[in-house]
Amino acid sequence: MIQNITDLARKLDKGAVTSAALVAEALERIADPAGQGGLAFLSTCAGAAMAQAEWIDGARAKGLPLPRHAGVPIAIKDLFDVKGEVTRAGSRVLDTQAPAAADAAIVWNLRRAGFVIVGKNNMTEFAYSGLGLNAHFGTPLNPCDPAEARIPGGSSSGAGVSVAAGMVPAAIGTDTGGSCRIPAAFCGIVGFKPTSTRVPREGAVPLSKTLDCIGPLATSVSCCAVLDSVLAGGEGEDEPSFPEGGLRLGVLGGYVTEHMDAMVGAAFEAMLTRLSRRGVRLTPLTIAELADLPRINAKGGLVGAEAHAWHAPHLATRAEFYDPWVRDRFGAGRSQTAEDYIRVIEERARMRALVAERTLPFDALILPAVQIVPPTLDSLKDTAVSNATNLLCLRNTAVGNFLDLPAISIPCHDDGTLPVGAMLMGRTGEDRRLLSIARGIEGTIRGH
Amino acid sequence: MIQNITDLARKLDKGAVTSAALVAEALERIADPAGQGGLAFLSTCAGAAMAQAEWIDGARAKGLPLPRHAGVPIAIKDLFDVKGEVTRAGSRVLDTQAPAAADAAIVWNLRRAGFVIVGKNNMTEFAYSGLGLNAHFGTPLNPCDPAEARIPGGSSSGAGVSVAAGMVPAAIGTDTGGSCRIPAAFCGIVGFKPTSTRVPREGAVPLSKTLDCIGPLATSVSCCAVLDSVLAGGEGEDEPSFPEGGLRLGVLGGYVTEHMDAMVGAAFEAMLTRLSRRGVRLTPLTIAELADLPRINAKGGLVGAEAHAWHAPHLATRAEFYDPWVRDRFGAGRSQTAEDYIRVIEERARMRALVAERTLPFDALILPAVQIVPPTLDSLKDTAVSNATNLLCLRNTAVGNFLDLPAISIPCHDDGTLPVGAMLMGRTGEDRRLLSIARGIEGTIRGH
Repeated sequence: MIQNITDLARKLDKGAVTSAALVAEALERIADPAGQGGLAFLSTCAGAAMAQAEWIDGARAKGLPLPRHAGVPIAIKDLFDVKGEVTRAGSRVLDTQAPAAADAAIVWNLRRAGFVIVGKNNMTEFAYSGLGLNAHFGTPLNPCDPAEARIPGGSSSGAGVSVAAGMVPAAIGTDTGGSCRIPAAFCGIVGFKPTSTRVPREGAVPLSKTLDCIGPLATSVSCCAVLDSVLAGGEGEDEPSFPEGGLRLGVLGGYVTEHMDAMVGAAFEAMLTRLSRRGVRLTPLTIAELADLPRINAKGGLVGAEAHAWHAPHLATRAEFYDPWVRDRFGAGRSQTAEDYIRVIEERARMRALVAERTLPFDALILPAVQIVPPTLDSLKDTAVSNATNLLCLRNTAVGNFLDLPAISIPCHDDGTLPVGAMLMGRTGEDRRLLSIARGIEGTIRGH
Repeated sequence: MIQNITDLARKLDKGAVTSAALVAEALERIADPAGQGGLAFLSTCAGAAMAQAEWIDGARAKGLPLPRHAGVPIAIKDLFDVKGEVTRAGSRVLDTQAPAAADAAIVWNLRRAGFVIVGKNNMTEFAYSGLGLNAHFGTPLNPCDPAEARIPGGSSSGAGVSVAAGMVPAAIGTDTGGSCRIPAAFCGIVGFKPTSTRVPREGAVPLSKTLDCIGPLATSVSCCAVLDSVLAGGEGEDEPSFPEGGLRLGVLGGYVTEHMDAMVGAAFEAMLTRLSRRGVRLTPLTIAELADLPRINAKGGLVGAEAHAWHAPHLATRAEFYDPWVRDRFGAGRSQTAEDYIRVIEERARMRALVAERTLPFDALILPAVQIVPPTLDSLKDTAVSNATNLLCLRNTAVGNFLDLPAISIPCHDDGTLPVGAMLMGRTGEDRRLLSIARGIEGTIRGH
């Protein structure tokens, strides 16, 4: 099973494996009819990927200098432009658009670092939900529970499923309210959302130009650190582990634990006990003002206004091609006034300053990524239930987007139980510090 | 007559004059019933200013180290917070507000640099017009024409009048659509608008949080360069003169010259001839897309939406205290939707990129600051005329705000004729380079 990109890079470098073999394995796993590959991917690019892999293997054999991760397969979310392809964003609405004239900035950054893109992952239509349902292309099932059909989380649903099922070692998602971290938490892998301005967003279909972030889903913090470096235009650096003993974490309660189910609560508590035993200093912290978030965003917030502005021309001409559930939520943004929108911007600035001050004593905050374990598909058939569950799935992760804080979800459940993600949140712009902290306590969070 | 701040600083340093004498002279000129001081200032702070001046004179006499401009008098626009005073912003609406809890950031920066604030200048109510009329406190008359009552330009009306009439060597204004540069052009002095993010805006009553800029009005480019440094938190550096010969200027035409009156046209053309004779390379440039600005801003644009958002609570409770002409324009922002507002932000980004590319070959652009000479008060009695004249006054200067370019207006008319301002516009963030260019050709622009 394909796993850790750092290990893969090392094996490639030693000649213990070829890129062509890794890419072929990925494509086989995706194509396996017994798995969810057909739903986790909306397209694959076998020809181009194999050609690139073989070129890299040839160059390596000749001793040519190559980027550190040259030859590692990877998947990208369906909303990133690949030159010459029509970008669909998990929808049928854009089918009539022209093919992309250029690669998205992050596609270019991945290629430059030698990663081999094997395909595009399924996603919630236009990334507008945290559940991971897709009415057009089907919903990939969560690999965590073979016994029951559970949702993968979204919007980067295929990314979560394909990494968790070992089809690819990592996938690139976007995160506007939790879309990297929710599928990571639900599928039992690691998902990272950087500060919004860290990774260039050119060539990605936007949901909210203010809140959109681009980040990796992978099997370890280290993989996320490497990919974050690549996505931001770097060479793929890892981060050293921040010392565990003496680390000061604020354990966020209140708004972010009010609806916590018993399984999440138990796994999260057990993890806190492990951290405490390792010398991490845990301080309970409640920021009462976070309870204002639903009121502040009651009219749709930044996502509602910005998504509606982007979709308005498509809603006018191709409304029938949207999933009605998605379309109706985009349409609701129409009623927001400029004053409503400006008020959210102002409240956001106030809240960011307030939280920045209250959290000064902590190296990071820790909280459940999602307050519930992944629900079954069957439980979401009613629209009112799916709307409420969607809001609950997004509740904790969206705090990080509203405050523009880097955040990472790391599995903290016991093997054999349903996945639970523990989320660390850092300070705006201090993405690499957060990754270092996450690396330092990853083993303790996971409990092994 | 009080004039150049660099000269004044030198005289103070040599002991040729005391700060107390300069402050006393400023206060006398403001109080002179034969002048416009009573209309150009809404308040003076004689006691505090004289005490500060005497303290500085004492310190200087003892040889204590002092900032370079310690003791130079200055005026500030009525919308800047001074600790302990109610900030009025040229209105009666805020009379019931609490006194400011702290100095505005720029007030603090001025004090730290040793400037002595002698009073607060009159302004258009809430800075929302380029004409300089004020229905509450009266309109200070333009000193350029003793024979006829002409408007001073706005919104920093009192700043323009008090500097042009020699009451203070410089005054600090704000510029959201031209409010530093229009009164400078109309009163025959120099006015500078920096890139919006250059000078901290804390403690200034906002008009548009996106577009507001804080800049100086003074008698020379050099004075503006010194004050720009101070306002941005520096020590009050001047800029060396950019070499005149070989300088490449784009002479902007089309949208910014279509309504030019004969006096402005003649003065501007004569100035271009002077520049050309001095070896400045002039290239005519038309950016056809600028003609889209009225359409882009037809629903009120960023100012309309942001000003309405700020004023909404006051419009709800103290509407009767607004000048109806100002109130009705603020109220019009109510109808703007979030989508309208987001479209302006998008069009602005596109226009900025386009103009940045088209203007790459030039060191700066040159254009008339205002297309007309200052109109008489009598000509503006009709609301339709005053609205149209307001838009015409703002037409050229607002280009700089929409594109977030630093811009400076320098007098280019002959002595004894009505004032005409030539405006130089630079590139975003290259404020100091623009000031250096302006210094290099200031003499030629002025024709002496």
